[in-house]
Amino acid sequence: MPPIPRSPLALPMPELSPVAGVRLAVGEAGIRYKGRPDVLLMAFAEGTTVAGVFTKNLCPGAPVTYCREILSGGLARGLVVNAGNANVFNGLAGLRAVEATAAAAAKALDTASETIFLASTGVIGEPLPAQKIVAVMESLAAALQADGLADAACAIMTTDTFPKAATRTARIGATEITITGIAKGSGMIAPDMATMLSFIFTDAAIPAPILQSMLTKSVDHSFNAITIDSDTSTSDTVLLFATGQARNKPFDDPSHLADFRRALAEVTHDLAMLVVRDGEGASKLVEITVEGAVSNHSAKRIALSVANSPLVKTAIAGEDANWGRIVMAVGKAGEPADRDKLAIAIGGTWIAQAGGVVRGYNEDPVVAHMKGQEIQIDVDIGLGQGRATVWTCDLTHGYIDINGAYRS
Amino acid sequence: MPPIPRSPLALPMPELSPVAGVRLAVGEAGIRYKGRPDVLLMAFAEGTTVAGVFTKNLCPGAPVTYCREILSGGLARGLVVNAGNANVFNGLAGLRAVEATAAAAAKALDTASETIFLASTGVIGEPLPAQKIVAVMESLAAALQADGLADAACAIMTTDTFPKAATRTARIGATEITITGIAKGSGMIAPDMATMLSFIFTDAAIPAPILQSMLTKSVDHSFNAITIDSDTSTSDTVLLFATGQARNKPFDDPSHLADFRRALAEVTHDLAMLVVRDGEGASKLVEITVEGAVSNHSAKRIALSVANSPLVKTAIAGEDANWGRIVMAVGKAGEPADRDKLAIAIGGTWIAQAGGVVRGYNEDPVVAHMKGQEIQIDVDIGLGQGRATVWTCDLTHGYIDINGAYRS
Repeated sequence: MPPIPRSPLALPMPELSPVAGVRLAVGEAGIRYKGRPDVLLMAFAEGTTVAGVFTKNLCPGAPVTYCREILSGGLARGLVVNAGNANVFNGLAGLRAVEATAAAAAKALDTASETIFLASTGVIGEPLPAQKIVAVMESLAAALQADGLADAACAIMTTDTFPKAATRTARIGATEITITGIAKGSGMIAPDMATMLSFIFTDAAIPAPILQSMLTKSVDHSFNAITIDSDTSTSDTVLLFATGQARNKPFDDPSHLADFRRALAEVTHDLAMLVVRDGEGASKLVEITVEGAVSNHSAKRIALSVANSPLVKTAIAGEDANWGRIVMAVGKAGEPADRDKLAIAIGGTWIAQAGGVVRGYNEDPVVAHMKGQEIQIDVDIGLGQGRATVWTCDLTHGYIDINGAYRS
Repeated sequence: MPPIPRSPLALPMPELSPVAGVRLAVGEAGIRYKGRPDVLLMAFAEGTTVAGVFTKNLCPGAPVTYCREILSGGLARGLVVNAGNANVFNGLAGLRAVEATAAAAAKALDTASETIFLASTGVIGEPLPAQKIVAVMESLAAALQADGLADAACAIMTTDTFPKAATRTARIGATEITITGIAKGSGMIAPDMATMLSFIFTDAAIPAPILQSMLTKSVDHSFNAITIDSDTSTSDTVLLFATGQARNKPFDDPSHLADFRRALAEVTHDLAMLVVRDGEGASKLVEITVEGAVSNHSAKRIALSVANSPLVKTAIAGEDANWGRIVMAVGKAGEPADRDKLAIAIGGTWIAQAGGVVRGYNEDPVVAHMKGQEIQIDVDIGLGQGRATVWTCDLTHGYIDINGAYRS
């Protein structure tokens, strides 16, 4: 198939400073792609803590099962990521590939296997040739350097059309710390996540249980609030590594972490938006906010019903303010809704209220808004205080082009 | 927009005999379409019983709300259907349009309003100009004739590319009876139904409660087992009218209706398959059978997860036997599944079993099957006895063409 054109919604990479305690190297293992980096090795300083959030797909890949198991240790010394083969649905061979990769990385980094985290992305159901990864491990370990997170963002791409990274600084007490993350993903993206991989690094010193609680919360409002196509990957993985090299004072009060939480939320939000901006075939970024539902959970389900509706998404692609399809998508969510209390706005203009078109509704500003790259849909259910925002993209010919001829 | 090309999966109309006790006329009210029939009036013999199944969308159209209310009467003398405007989300104006239409039909047919059933299909959120329907009512009533069900199937089309009808005969005791149905629908089709309208007529004499129970069951396995795009219309309506003109003997044993149930199941199945065959942009008809789930309900949810997966549907459009996407779709359904017990077949060839590719799997027959127009996917969950079959179509550029420029 021809190369996928760069998304019109792509954003430039920010400047990425090294994160103290993080070293990395990328290489070409030739797993599926030729002539481009497809494997990433990272090494973390001693004492690095780790948190993770994984796909809820019930047929997860072998690396997901493996990471879930070792996560309870709370410590990480290495990460190996490959693109081109997801190592999913390979039975016992999948497990063996995981073990061989972890063992080779542990040997190269002189650490224990159970501190090596793994992620794979790419084709499902083809055995992962782990020996190709093992073969380059020693040379990757010899090439580790503190800089190069931008290269890492490139090495983990599959159908992505641009690399994705975000960075922030925050203060813990008097210490300035850095949080930098990279991500990949462009299709099979739905809550909870997708073939969405994200790795986030900070030099803060934070115990693993606290790190986990902060990551889970920030993922709920970022990676778990985006959908490209309602399809949920078997490999979704978000890992957050905290090297402790900033040597912030130990904290005894969670409020000391407020600024860190803010920065982490911003990094995960940025990365999630980049994934939507690279949604397969995307020409528009769509934000859907539902208010007035009976609960936040109900609001999110309604918002996702709108975000996943092929008829809503094709209407947006056609720059058609077809709010009737939004009504349909609200109604099909199965959540409490009352047709006669429902209100819908596009681009800030209320079109429908109390079960009918707003008196004197002027379509002009809405038509203008639909021609833009960023579309805002607001739905007020009118029943309660529940609120949620989700993000998606439109559904275009590009999605069919990419997915009708991916594996063949 | 250019005319939508006729579906490559279209089937010719069967011969339709008149159903005793059913008269009809079609006309041009000019509601939205010009130069084609867009309104249908039907009149039923005195004593006609009626059963109905409607959308579960919580923002239903005014005609759905109205029909649900009068259905409890169990009797029908008339039916008015219009295409081009769904009379959905029009607030009080929607209710008034319903009342005006029912009153005009009741007057023209010399009967009570509450025996007039209504259905509307088309655009959402634009007031239905009921006066255009009212204006043609007397002339339609004067033109009623026993023949012409094929014309009726044409009059109710919207984005349909071919008219849809099915017919069967059955015996109740010694009496031969006829069941004939028409349907429309091609998008916004998901369980439970879609902008899917179907009207089924029989000359059998069957009390309304028994008719209802039989219709509900047959719809579960037909109209409620198909999905085009996961979007559920606000207007879905299936009505079954029994005129009693065949004058079958009253039955005192439900087993006397076994042959009728068989014929009704066949008619609803045929009609549902025609709707899938006219799925917007469809190039392939896909049957998905899930076995071995923990319950029939669980099997249906898994089957629908596969049927609604854009990645599965685009792979089928690309004639790619991408069974990895089927694994993903099973896993994302949220129903009990065990990766290591899962088995998947395409076109009768088992590709994956026990969590991995079948030893010596030969892709040739699967590749050949994928090139055909009818695709069969079998999934064995390996956990229980639950079983379900659903039908869908592939996702192609045609879907984007049709839905990216429908209303504008």
